[in-house]
Parts: sequence; C-alpha cells; structure tokens
Amino acid sequence: VYIPLPTSQHVEWAAKAIEAGKHVLVEKPLALDAKDILPLIKLRDAKKVLVCEAFMVIYHPQWIKVRDLIASGAIGRLRHVQGAFSYYNVDPNNMRNQLDLGGGALPDIGVYPTVSTRFSTGKEPLRVQATIERDKKFGTDIYSSIRADFGDFELSFYLSTQMAARQVMVFHGEKGFIEVFSPFNAGLYDHHRVELHNQNHTEAQVFRFPGTQQYRLEVETIARVAQGGKERVFTLEESVLNQKVIDAIFRAGGTDGWETV
Amino acid sequence: VYIPLPTSQHVEWAAKAIEAGKHVLVEKPLALDAKDILPLIKLRDAKKVLVCEAFMVIYHPQWIKVRDLIASGAIGRLRHVQGAFSYYNVDPNNMRNQLDLGGGALPDIGVYPTVSTRFSTGKEPLRVQATIERDKKFGTDIYSSIRADFGDFELSFYLSTQMAARQVMVFHGEKGFIEVFSPFNAGLYDHHRVELHNQNHTEAQVFRFPGTQQYRLEVETIARVAQGGKERVFTLEESVLNQKVIDAIFRAGGTDGWETV
Amino acid sequence: VYIPLPTSQHVEWAAKAIEAGKHVLVEKPLALDAKDILPLIKLRDAKKVLVCEAFMVIYHPQWIKVRDLIASGAIGRLRHVQGAFSYYNVDPNNMRNQLDLGGGALPDIGVYPTVSTRFSTGKEPLRVQATIERDKKFGTDIYSSIRADFGDFELSFYLSTQMAARQVMVFHGEKGFIEVFSPFNAGLYDHHRVELHNQNHTEAQVFRFPGTQQYRLEVETIARVAQGGKERVFTLEESVLNQKVIDAIFRAGGTDGWETV
Amino acid sequence: VYIPLPTSQHVEWAAKAIEAGKHVLVEKPLALDAKDILPLIKLRDAKKVLVCEAFMVIYHPQWIKVRDLIASGAIGRLRHVQGAFSYYNVDPNNMRNQLDLGGGALPDIGVYPTVSTRFSTGKEPLRVQATIERDKKFGTDIYSSIRADFGDFELSFYLSTQMAARQVMVFHGEKGFIEVFSPFNAGLYDHHRVELHNQNHTEAQVFRFPGTQQYRLEVETIARVAQGGKERVFTLEESVLNQKVIDAIFRAGGTDGWETV
Repeated sequence: VYIPLPTSQHVEWAAKAIEAGKHVLVEKPLALDAKDILPLIKLRDAKKVLVCEAFMVIYHPQWIKVRDLIASGAIGRLRHVQGAFSYYNVDPNNMRNQLDLGGGALPDIGVYPTVSTRFSTGKEPLRVQATIERDKKFGTDIYSSIRADFGDFELSFYLSTQMAARQVMVFHGEKGFIEVFSPFNAGLYDHHRVELHNQNHTEAQVFRFPGTQQYRLEVETIARVAQGGKERVFTLEESVLNQKVIDAIFRAGGTDGWETV
Repeated sequence: VYIPLPTSQHVEWAAKAIEAGKHVLVEKPLALDAKDILPLIKLRDAKKVLVCEAFMVIYHPQWIKVRDLIASGAIGRLRHVQGAFSYYNVDPNNMRNQLDLGGGALPDIGVYPTVSTRFSTGKEPLRVQATIERDKKFGTDIYSSIRADFGDFELSFYLSTQMAARQVMVFHGEKGFIEVFSPFNAGLYDHHRVELHNQNHTEAQVFRFPGTQQYRLEVETIARVAQGGKERVFTLEESVLNQKVIDAIFRAGGTDGWETV
Repeated sequence: VYIPLPTSQHVEWAAKAIEAGKHVLVEKPLALDAKDILPLIKLRDAKKVLVCEAFMVIYHPQWIKVRDLIASGAIGRLRHVQGAFSYYNVDPNNMRNQLDLGGGALPDIGVYPTVSTRFSTGKEPLRVQATIERDKKFGTDIYSSIRADFGDFELSFYLSTQMAARQVMVFHGEKGFIEVFSPFNAGLYDHHRVELHNQNHTEAQVFRFPGTQQYRLEVETIARVAQGGKERVFTLEESVLNQKVIDAIFRAGGTDGWETV
Repeated sequence: VYIPLPTSQHVEWAAKAIEAGKHVLVEKPLALDAKDILPLIKLRDAKKVLVCEAFMVIYHPQWIKVRDLIASGAIGRLRHVQGAFSYYNVDPNNMRNQLDLGGGALPDIGVYPTVSTRFSTGKEPLRVQATIERDKKFGTDIYSSIRADFGDFELSFYLSTQMAARQVMVFHGEKGFIEVFSPFNAGLYDHHRVELHNQNHTEAQVFRFPGTQQYRLEVETIARVAQGGKERVFTLEESVLNQKVIDAIFRAGGTDGWETV
C-alpha cells in the first residue's frame, strides 16, 4: 500500500494498513513528531510487515556514489556539508501552505539535506541551531537557516518555500569536495550529475546518471525487500532519527540557541 | 606607497607613510582590531592623503554586475547569501600560519564574503554567530562557520585554510539567484563568470569578464582618485566597518551565541 | 498503429496498416530509398489517414526554441551549422549492425542533424559531399563525414556507430551562436539545455526544459492531429525530403564529390 | 628579436634580423607561401641562430595534456577532430581586413586548428578540401569550411572573421572524446579547461590550467632553447609544413575538390 495523503493523516492510515497486514510505503514526512512513529514500529514488528517512509533519494545511484566516494577517502577528512533547497509557491490551496494539513517548509523539504547527509556519511547530528520564519497568513514555516553539528563535521543549509528554486549539496573535506547538482529532484532541477574536485581545484571528475528514475528504483527495491530481499531500505528507525532532527530544529527556532537532537 | 608587509606591521607602517604625506595602499587586513584603524583616519584627514585597504574585488566588473542586478530587482527580495572560501596550506613558514605575524583564516580571507556582500547590497550586518577552530600547533584560526544577520537577509558562509580550495558566493532572492563562480581570485579559481537564474530554474543569464585584472583595476582606480578623480574606492571608514565584523566573529566564536556588530 | 519493426520491413507494414484504415506512426527510418515512400503518400491520401515517421525531436520544446531564436534574428545571419552524433555498438546481434535488416549509421542516426537543421531553419539542402566508411564484417556504414550546402549556410557533421557517444548541434551566425547540448536523446545524453551566446562570447542565455518527454509529446501531438487538430507533425512529404538527403549522401560517399539532393 | 609587423613584411625583416645574427621570434603567419620560408631556413643554418614562428598554443600545458591523453590511449583510436575558430571584425582599418598587408581569416587564424591537431597527434594531413568565401569589399577571405584527411583520421573545421566569436577543438575516438574549451585564446575566450569524456558519456575528467600565460611560456621556452636548452619549440621546418596546408586549402578553395598537401 502506498499512502500519499496529506501529512497530518499519514500516521493514522499507516497504522490501519499495517493492522490489515499490508506492507506500507508512506509519503514523507511520515509524522510531525518523532514520538508518533514509535507506535508504528511496535505495530510493524507485531504484524511482521515492511513499513517505509518514501525517501526516494537514497535509492538514486548518485547518492550511492557520494557515499562511496566519501568512504573511499576521496575528499579526505570531511569538515563541512553545505546545502540549499527551495522553491516558490504561494498558492493558498496547496497542501504545503496549509498548517492544519501538516504544511510548511521543514515538514516538506527540511529532511532532505539531513537525510542525504546521514546517508552519505553514516553519522548522526548531535545538536542543531536554527532561525525560522513563518508566513503571516498561512502560519506555516516558509524559511529556515540551519546549522547541525555532527561532531566530526558541520552541516549548514537553508530552506524556503518562498524563494527561487535552488537545490545543491556540497560535501567538503581536506582533500577535495563533492558537489551534487540536482540532489533531490534529480533530472528535474538539473541533470543527474555529481562532481568531485581535487584539493587545488585544478582537476575534477564528473559522474552522470542519465535516465535514472529514483521513484521507480525506490518502489522496486522495497518490493524486493518485502519479498525477502536483503537490500538497504529507509526503516522506521531511521524515520525516528530524522524526525528528531526536525523536532530539534523547531525547538531551536524558538530558543535562538543550540538544541540537542 | 603600497604596503605588503606581514599583517601585524600594517598599521605602524601605514602611519609612517601617511605622516610622510604619501597616498597609501595597504594590503589587507589593514588591522587586527577595528579600533587600531581610527588613528589612521585622523592622520589621513590631517595629511589630506588617500589611504585604502587593498580590497581588489570591489573593482572587478563582475561585482559591479552583481550589485546592479540586485539593485535592478532581478532576484526580487534578497533573503539569503551563501558563501564559502577555503584553501589548503599547512606550511609552518607561511605567514598565514604564524599567529604573531597576524596569521589565521579570518584575518586572511574572512573579510571577503562580508565585503562582497556589503558591496553588493549596500547593507551592514547587525549581529553574527560563529564557530571557530584553531590549529593545535599554529594557534591560528583555521576553520570558521559563520551566520551574519543583515536584518533583511542572512549571510552564511564558512572559511578554512585547511580544506580543499573552494570559493563561491550565491545571492538568493524570491525571484531568482545569482551565483558568482570565482568571486575572490577571479580567473584563477575558475573563469570570471556570474550566472543569474530565474525563479523556476528554467532559464539563466551568463556574464563573463574575460581577461579582467582586478589588481590592475584597483591600482588604476586609486591612482585616479589620488589625483582628484571621483570614483568609488574602499575607504578607511569601510575598513572599520569590516574589521568590526571580524572582531564580532571572534567574540561570537568564544561565546557560541550571537554577538552584536 | 505504431510500427517499430526492423527498418527493412517499415514500408511493407506501414502500407498494410494504411490499407486497413489506421493512422500510422512508423519508427524511423521509414524507408531506405526516397522513392519507396511515394506509394505510401498515395495510399495515405486515398485512405485519408495520418501517417508519420517518428521524428520525436521536432516535438521537443528545445527545438521550437532554437527555431524561434533563429527566426527572431538572435544570431543574425546564419552561416554554419556544426553537428555530431555517435555511439559505440559492435554487437553483431544488434539490428543496427545487420545490413539486411536496414542497419547502418546513416539510416539509424544520419537523418537527425539534417532533420533538426531543416526544422530550425526552414531551408533545404541543395547538395552534399560525404566520406563513408563501412565495417568490414558487418558491411554496414559505420562512419560518415558530411557537408551539406543549404545555399545561405552550410551544415557539417559526422556520424558513427563505432565512436564514443557524443551529440551536439551548433547554429552559428554573425551575431551569436546557439548550442544544443543534448539534441537528439534529450535528457539522456545530457540535460535538456540550449545556450545562446552573444557576438563576443561575454554573455549567454541558458534555456532548460526539465522533465520533457519528447516521445510522449510526439504521440500526443499526433493523436490530436489524427482527431482533426491543427498542429505541425512530420509529414510523409518531409520524409521524402529527408530520405533524398540520405540517398544523396550515399551517392556522394561513392563519388567523393558533391551530389545534388 | 620579436617581429610583430604586418604579415606581408615578416619574411623580409626576419631575414634581416637573422643576418644580423639575432635569435628571432616572428609573429604568425610567418609567410604567405610555404616556399618563402625555405630561404630563412638556409639563412638560419648559416647563422646558427634560433628562428621561431610565434605559435604560443603549443607551449600551453593544456595542449601538452591533450597530446599525452591521446598518446596514452585515453580515447582509443582517434577518428575525427572537429574544430571552429571565429571572431567578428569588419573594421576596414584592421590589418586582418587588408589584403595587401597579408590579411584574411586563413593567414590569421587558419593555422591554429591544424597546428594544434598536428601537435596533439604527431600526424600530418595528406590532402584537404575547402570552401572559401571572400569579402566583396576587402577582398580578403572571411569564411572557410575545411576537411583535412590525416589518413588515420579526419579534421573538419570552419573559420571566420565575420561570425560571432567561437573556438573549440574536439578530439574524438572510439573510447572517448576530448574537448578543449578555450583552445587558442586560453583564458580569454573561456577558462583554460580540457575535458575527457568516456565512451558512453557517463563520466568525465576535467583539467584546468588557471593563470597560465601562454605567451610568457613561449618566450621563456624560446629563451632557454636559444641558450642551449633542449626543449620543444616550433621550428621553421614545422612552419613550412603548416604553410603547405594553408597553401593547399587556398588551392582547394579554387577547385572545389581535394588537394594534396
């Protein structure tokens, strides 16, 4: 079962589907608070089904390439991850601009920079700091600027639903940096393209992934795993970790200081 | 007179040159504390000479293009400026790695993102927040991650003298964003190239400035102004404003919170 | 009806489908000799159906943009069109490497540079000159280098089925030039991207067409026209003009001189 | 001695300088006919001096990289070299538009695609084919489209002094292709940048040569060789080979067929 309902109804309908013994793929964000996911984990274990939040990006080979490049030492010690994700949409009828349906920039796109950083590095953020602005009419969050401390390195990024479209992720180490040109809507924002630059910026390697359909790869992978395959999927446990970051960002937006994840 | 001495001797020798009635171009950073610049201003006014800190970037036509594009409304309301500036140098004999000569990332390159943002927008930062790391052996600051609140918009950037070379500045508004591909060492890091992207990322305008020699333009402009010409130069008053930002960043690095500029 | 059979059977099955009163979309190349298309035109007119060779490229908005830019005078007087189209395939089981199935580089990809030039300029080639190489084992043509004289301007391009993949088309005039980055397999070879450069190469405009599916646009357009819509499709008359160019290229490859189209 | 006079006076003044026992660097084109260079070779040998035509491009590390990549097999068997070189200049006072001073596109820029191909591959063209157009007022050649048969591979390119600025050279083999982005006015037309693409266009390597000053490298190399150094320079014997190509192109432009070099 695939659940693409408004965000505010995800947990409820996911639970119903699990109880019916179905494997479930829930559109992200699965929940609006990490603790809402915990009952689903219990239910999942009881019913022995597969339940996944729909993070298509981790099935795209460009992200597997980024993870492998970092692991191979291609950029040396990672020190900073810099990202951005924005689009412009002020349509009051759009779910993303409706607070009671779970709208807002952080629920909609805020998890992508964190998910892709967690996936690429295998590390978890320890604490976060954030500035958050809300739309006066919609009440939803429309702009955030965030720093996340991963211990070994830092992630900084900003988000907006009221800025020109931009998406980029850069993983920057001592020996090189990796730039992902179309990190989230691969092939739509720009070409599926990853570049690895050397230490003094005189050489680069370019990797292209033409024709990749990340949503199809996601569904196919989940189908194989549901039938017993051993492949990496995005588990509910990871959803909890992700949602904890978003929860901490919302808290940090209120206190103007660092908040532990 | 052009003063390219180690940073720690800039103020002293600039003062001597002014007293001798010379026009002075001092290599940046002029000082290591904003208050050290004030006596130079008095001296300059007394001697009626021209004294400028060597910020070559503001003489490069690519920055004049950025300023004009923003002023023309090409990107709509500006909300975020994102930047990076880094290179890798661990040579202990290099002045940049010697604390007593005024070394460190912030004195060497920390001012560029701020200067170019101030120049392009005409706005001043109100407060800053920073994380700063120092080299255990050199004692100099080698990595900073900074957020600066300009009231209307935010600037976020990171610096390092121990990361692979990267330099970029992005001015991101509601209707578009501007990317400067080789913002500081134009033509050396990459081509002199500015791109303006539209709101949904389907169109872009590219501006190239081949063969521009920003150091030559700087010297020629200053020479004309010294002889009575009316053109924009980087005044000591601006040096004070800049240095106040750096001073506040150093304070913020100690307190882990916001510091007023 | 869509006919994707081996090339050598296209005309026969297209005729059968037309006789059955069906609208027909035939995979290109429709024929291996221009005169084989003439009976299909008669049949089409008798049966009052729509018959089109599958040139998906002319339905892609990037080519409509190129045509409009040229027509608007954006590059001034057009003087040269330069192109390339190649891939590497030496699989003896592939239809493209089987002479009796209508294989070869010219039948497979040779028409694209000409079709896109004819579409973009509205002009027809007057004469052509060509060097053609054949595979010793397959007997098929595997490499051609071609110049086509359009009177006002010239088209030069080369093709190969045994060279690394490359595809590009450049329309070069007195005031600027247009480069199409992924002219034929848009979105697969590279991003859907067209650039217009100014006379001294200091400025450029970039046009992107993310997510365009040219095959879908083709089928949808043809479906609308089959139902009475008034839109441009690729007619059999155009197929004849195209095939005449290919026929002339084959002749020119034999004589090592110019051949009238 | 460096001789930057109008083309028509190069041979005469080069001869005078050699007779005076000077090492000579002559601006290209050295001559307007290959046989005019032969007396200079005799004179050079008699006076035991160094005489070079100023082909700065072969001293640029980007061309050494191209040559090494081809030699290393990076693109497999080379089959086609495609190039273009143009700018727009209709100033009647410019030497390039004055027939009696040796003006014209072929003398001015026609040798670059051939020189760089000869340098990168170590091969000589066997025969050429060309279309040449002349300006009605100036009488000089302003547009040429040329194919040169190198036996193993082909070079096709066009030139113009009355088209928008463009310069590119692509070396295309079975396993990959190399693109030189700013082949002749490196750093001015665009960045010093060479790209190597793999067989199916999914990966590329980028090589940048920031800050290279090819004229300085040329002069320094020649100075070292004049003082006994053993390095590659562009000899008068190579000037003869080059000029023979230009001479053959002019002949081919008249006969509309192939001309042996």
